[in-house]
Amino acid sequence: MRATYIEDFEQWSKEFTFSVPVTVRFSETDMYGHLNNTVNFSYFEYARIEYLKHVGLMNDWLNPKGSTIPVVADLQCDYVRQVFFDEQLNIHVKAASVGSSSVDIHYHATNSKRETCFVGRGTIVQINKSTGKGTPWSEEEKVLFTN
Amino acid sequence: MRATYIEDFEQWSKEFTFSVPVTVRFSETDMYGHLNNTVNFSYFEYARIEYLKHVGLMNDWLNPKGSTIPVVADLQCDYVRQVFFDEQLNIHVKAASVGSSSVDIHYHATNSKRETCFVGRGTIVQINKSTGKGTPWSEEEKVLFTN
Amino acid sequence: MRATYIEDFEQWSKEFTFSVPVTVRFSETDMYGHLNNTVNFSYFEYARIEYLKHVGLMNDWLNPKGSTIPVVADLQCDYVRQVFFDEQLNIHVKAASVGSSSVDIHYHATNSKRETCFVGRGTIVQINKSTGKGTPWSEEEKVLFTN
Amino acid sequence: MRATYIEDFEQWSKEFTFSVPVTVRFSETDMYGHLNNTVNFSYFEYARIEYLKHVGLMNDWLNPKGSTIPVVADLQCDYVRQVFFDEQLNIHVKAASVGSSSVDIHYHATNSKRETCFVGRGTIVQINKSTGKGTPWSEEEKVLFTN
Repeated sequence: MRATYIEDFEQWSKEFTFSVPVTVRFSETDMYGHLNNTVNFSYFEYARIEYLKHVGLMNDWLNPKGSTIPVVADLQCDYVRQVFFDEQLNIHVKAASVGSSSVDIHYHATNSKRETCFVGRGTIVQINKSTGKGTPWSEEEKVLFTN
Repeated sequence: MRATYIEDFEQWSKEFTFSVPVTVRFSETDMYGHLNNTVNFSYFEYARIEYLKHVGLMNDWLNPKGSTIPVVADLQCDYVRQVFFDEQLNIHVKAASVGSSSVDIHYHATNSKRETCFVGRGTIVQINKSTGKGTPWSEEEKVLFTN
Repeated sequence: MRATYIEDFEQWSKEFTFSVPVTVRFSETDMYGHLNNTVNFSYFEYARIEYLKHVGLMNDWLNPKGSTIPVVADLQCDYVRQVFFDEQLNIHVKAASVGSSSVDIHYHATNSKRETCFVGRGTIVQINKSTGKGTPWSEEEKVLFTN
Repeated sequence: MRATYIEDFEQWSKEFTFSVPVTVRFSETDMYGHLNNTVNFSYFEYARIEYLKHVGLMNDWLNPKGSTIPVVADLQCDYVRQVFFDEQLNIHVKAASVGSSSVDIHYHATNSKRETCFVGRGTIVQINKSTGKGTPWSEEEKVLFTN
């Protein structure tokens, strides 16, 4: 694994306090017999949103009358171990660093033996729906990410 | 094939005049090595929308300020022949019958040898976005389906 | 709902004894703001396989050295109520009737208020991997569907 | 765009000589009204495989009796411009660098105005199906990537 966003894996993996379980569906496999490489990003999205709900940030973003939405600025995934149909994974999520209107989110997927299956990261930016411009976090919002 | 919506297959298959090409993507296969059974409905949706654009009905439905959208009332698919990665299919589409605010759309998927791979049908209903009630076609719209 | 495979809805819905929970993912919605109509079939597949594991039939079908696999002969879905992001659904599954090498499986998706969101059915057939021919159930297997 | 794998964007974008067209399907949008961020990786996979077929490397990997398959080691995407339903994209692909048993593939997605919508990269590794170990390219194979 050459994930340059992880300095000390031991330390990095200890910092996650939130995770969601995911079971690999049959329709998510491909003809090579394993989880198709595009599905990992669906798991990241699912885990990210559950995390954002957990810290209390998702409400406004799901309100059709809200003025802001989060957009994904970039995403990456490093594949460590093949994953197969019916495996039970835990997708761990954390906010690794918080910018003025963005947040860098990290992911760690482990199997039932607590082995690392894949890791990843990506920045999301809060933008104004009308202008498309970045909208800074309030101080209250910044605090939410540190919980 | 027990598709009860097809009385005379020969006759039925001749009535299609519109089709779209689709190539099976790797991510659309599953660990049994063939096209996963859920993807056929994505092909139906793609073909249906191309058909609706072709007859001139899609414009209002894609306008965020439009008052109506089409919703799928039911869908079915009969699987005749296994389909594999990289196969080039043609999805033929027609309006089989038109109701006051609905239309019954039929599908016929053939491979490059013109063999039938799968067939299907489904009703879509035009509803009012605010009320959720069926919104009757205008006479002009009904005519579009017969073109 | 015009689902012709349901004679008496009250009676039909009581006959389900197995179900799996599913939560609607963000990536499963579409620009009309609701669950995309193609995803319902992924839920059916997931529920069907959990059911087949539950009754004890899935083992051989997942064994790469097994001689048979189940294939989907047809599938249909009747959409009753729009479903939105983050809704918690229960997908109820039952074997409605068993043929010599096939089984007709029915589905009933309900939300947290126990309202019907969509219903469906489809036949799966056990085939021989090499010949592609239908492979009859053993008497033991037929019994499994009645549990 | 902070894509660190692109030194000189002008130069980088000129080096692509192969591309495939993709049209955004309705089922690929999400409730925010644009292309869901997980689908970009399906486009990368589709474009990568078309590229590998084009250079002549895919044949053995699709042969069930072949001894090697390519696996994705990592993937990343930088999102530059929102993409919407029905947009016609071109996904440009190139081999940016070739290792002993791996290749680093770059992607550049442009719309019909030739504007950049998203960029990406990822390493694939050729592994032996039985051992899971990396299998070095032959000299002939290495040459294919430079065509």
